[in-house]
Amino acid sequence: MKDLVLDPAPRPLDTPEQLETRLREIGATRYHNLHPFHHLLHSGQLNKAQVQAWALNRYYYQSSIPIKDAVVLSRFRDHAVRLEWRQRIEDHDGNTHGEEGGIERWLVLTDALGLPRDYVTSTVGILPATRFAVDAYINFVRDRTPLEAVASALTEVFAPQIHKERIAGMLEHYDFVNPGVMKYFTRRVEQATKDADFCLDYVKRNARTPEERQRVVEALIFKCNVLWTQLDALQHAYVEGHPPPGVFDPKDWA
Amino acid sequence: MKDLVLDPAPRPLDTPEQLETRLREIGATRYHNLHPFHHLLHSGQLNKAQVQAWALNRYYYQSSIPIKDAVVLSRFRDHAVRLEWRQRIEDHDGNTHGEEGGIERWLVLTDALGLPRDYVTSTVGILPATRFAVDAYINFVRDRTPLEAVASALTEVFAPQIHKERIAGMLEHYDFVNPGVMKYFTRRVEQATKDADFCLDYVKRNARTPEERQRVVEALIFKCNVLWTQLDALQHAYVEGHPPPGVFDPKDWA
Repeated sequence: MKDLVLDPAPRPLDTPEQLETRLREIGATRYHNLHPFHHLLHSGQLNKAQVQAWALNRYYYQSSIPIKDAVVLSRFRDHAVRLEWRQRIEDHDGNTHGEEGGIERWLVLTDALGLPRDYVTSTVGILPATRFAVDAYINFVRDRTPLEAVASALTEVFAPQIHKERIAGMLEHYDFVNPGVMKYFTRRVEQATKDADFCLDYVKRNARTPEERQRVVEALIFKCNVLWTQLDALQHAYVEGHPPPGVFDPKDWA
Repeated sequence: MKDLVLDPAPRPLDTPEQLETRLREIGATRYHNLHPFHHLLHSGQLNKAQVQAWALNRYYYQSSIPIKDAVVLSRFRDHAVRLEWRQRIEDHDGNTHGEEGGIERWLVLTDALGLPRDYVTSTVGILPATRFAVDAYINFVRDRTPLEAVASALTEVFAPQIHKERIAGMLEHYDFVNPGVMKYFTRRVEQATKDADFCLDYVKRNARTPEERQRVVEALIFKCNVLWTQLDALQHAYVEGHPPPGVFDPKDWA
């Protein structure tokens, strides 16, 4: 249990229903829709440079997701889970019949923001905190149990709502945003709903003891921390004006 | 070279001397003695709660160092390097003849700040960014080449100066600090100097191509990022007042 250290207030988890209640509590208190940076983003209070910084940093997260999902897939001898999970890699990487994936759609957004693709994909300008948090996610799904690896994707349960807020808010407030640019998010609304249903059902069926359920809870807290930390770092660097040495400087790409 | 992405302005590195010059440039521009949080700490501008948050979070870093060093040691078939490196584990963990190590000396500091040892060692209250950054350091020395693993310790070249500033500044400004409490730092001044000499000599002799020297440079940038990111997170949470959900709340330990 040494690795269970993220939950300051554990609750009884004797049933799958108690687990779901607890997971929804965590979403309601720790999911990054609550973060002040998202409030600024969605209400049009960021300038273009700040939106650039967000899109540039989040590219590292987006482009790491299929790597993370490949690690998750590799943890399962159960063919049915592998089949289910493989769809996620295709969602982000696209397929050989020419259908674009989520990463390509993210680059449409960074294009619209005036960031060169070579610069974005090099990741040289991202915040160190972004890299640490995202890499922690990849390591988590490799080092923890397969149950915890699946559970760390449970943030998808809360994602469709934030995507809808973001699409509406960004379309309304920013002149560099149009429906084509927001296609990443419109597509994710449907994808994330399906993925979330699978994850929630999986953890409710496969976490069979209170300790296993606590592992699921901690995996969700961990993942909320991965998302929240990225926004804290963006806010500190680009809203409060304390960029660490060597990172993206909007003046270079204005 | 895909993993070399941290240096926005690479320089020619054709000789060991060019390497040393570049390493000292990085120290002069990226080492965390330059971070505003350290300026506040050393000049007495933090309150006790903020010093508590610093000591609590840095405990996670301190207590991870012997684990990091054990991973480094495990990378070497060269007996001489293992013998040299083993001393570092003893410096932090102490020895069986009853000599305390750096972790124990760190807990003397958290004791003096009124933080219960069980709480400190549980790490439940630390910032997620602290955990991500420190864990990234452990993963780095496991996943990169042995040369890069050694090079990531090169921040010790710049450490004695910051320890001296800290000892003088904290003794002068904080009434909860006395020489016994600062013993961690007084001891580290001599340890770090010896360790730094070994590392600098090692990378100058063992990085034999420009690419290998660039790997050394990036390892030092990486490690500077590990240290800087921890202070950015402390400043954002406890100076600017944006603590993420679930972390140390000074009101609980006033």
